[in-house]
Amino acid sequence: MELPMEKWTILSRKKIMQRAVFSVSDMECEHASLGISHTFSIIDAPDWINVVAQTENGELILVRQHRLGTDEITWETPAGMIEKGEDPRCAAERELSEETGYTAKEIVLMSVLRANPAIMTNRIHFFLAKGCTEIQKQNLDREEDISVELRSVRQVQDMIHSGQIDHSIIVTALSLFLLSEKQQSVTEGL
Amino acid sequence: MELPMEKWTILSRKKIMQRAVFSVSDMECEHASLGISHTFSIIDAPDWINVVAQTENGELILVRQHRLGTDEITWETPAGMIEKGEDPRCAAERELSEETGYTAKEIVLMSVLRANPAIMTNRIHFFLAKGCTEIQKQNLDREEDISVELRSVRQVQDMIHSGQIDHSIIVTALSLFLLSEKQQSVTEGL
Repeated sequence: MELPMEKWTILSRKKIMQRAVFSVSDMECEHASLGISHTFSIIDAPDWINVVAQTENGELILVRQHRLGTDEITWETPAGMIEKGEDPRCAAERELSEETGYTAKEIVLMSVLRANPAIMTNRIHFFLAKGCTEIQKQNLDREEDISVELRSVRQVQDMIHSGQIDHSIIVTALSLFLLSEKQQSVTEGL
Repeated sequence: MELPMEKWTILSRKKIMQRAVFSVSDMECEHASLGISHTFSIIDAPDWINVVAQTENGELILVRQHRLGTDEITWETPAGMIEKGEDPRCAAERELSEETGYTAKEIVLMSVLRANPAIMTNRIHFFLAKGCTEIQKQNLDREEDISVELRSVRQVQDMIHSGQIDHSIIVTALSLFLLSEKQQSVTEGL
């Protein structure tokens, strides 16, 4: 039997900074049975989408860009923020098209996860875009400089193993895809 | 052939807030070929460790706690911050012991990933702790209230599928474990 756990009571919440892609708030909380109060600082961000996109030939569409958090050029799957009021699937189609110029025949939701419940409020919607074809040019934001690269599923697995793909959210997206592929091949093998 | 991508030049970096588990800095940057400048806000945090821990019977050791980012009771693998100067493996042993009371016969590094290169500076060290036995009581921080639960590998897979485990970093840790297990069973089957 699973016992209910006790939650902290949130007494107050105050935004202490706001930037374009996230804000930070302090929350004063108290815990009745621990008999203490504590301030938790949390990061508010809009929900994000992440797209594992596969061409009609089965290759995966990767993007490269300079990321300032780590000051490195990363290998990633197309991704971005959901705009206010935007449907997650539309955001996935939009980001795929803007960052790569590709459009999918079909987009399916793989999973919706919490980015990091300890300190972040938002969710990540992971999509699989199938049968993608390049039908237009990239349409990048002013500050974006993104190159597009195609790699086989096998190459992408090797890039994860070697550490060339080392962005945890991207590894999550690709793992969801690889685990579902393995599941499928097990099922088909029966 | 892979063309080198151009990086932003970081002109200045200014810390704008500091809390216990992260700080935020603004970085003024310029991009020569885009011909623009832009301010990127990034989150500095110490490296984290995450431990997929398995008992001698093969069950996985999960922890439950109230997380303030999402205001939900989560299902997680043991995890935490690496202390200043601490070896990542020691941090993994320490967090496993403090949060669960278990000690591993062997701890192996599965992967080191970047938490989120777009906005975060830090890395996550993912460990697999094998042959764990409960040899002491939990030793929690003042503000921690954590319950320990054992689940079979199959149950954990179901909990990911059903969305009961929905913390993206935890799904990453468990996917790394599940993919290596699948790889092993494929190899052993040859």
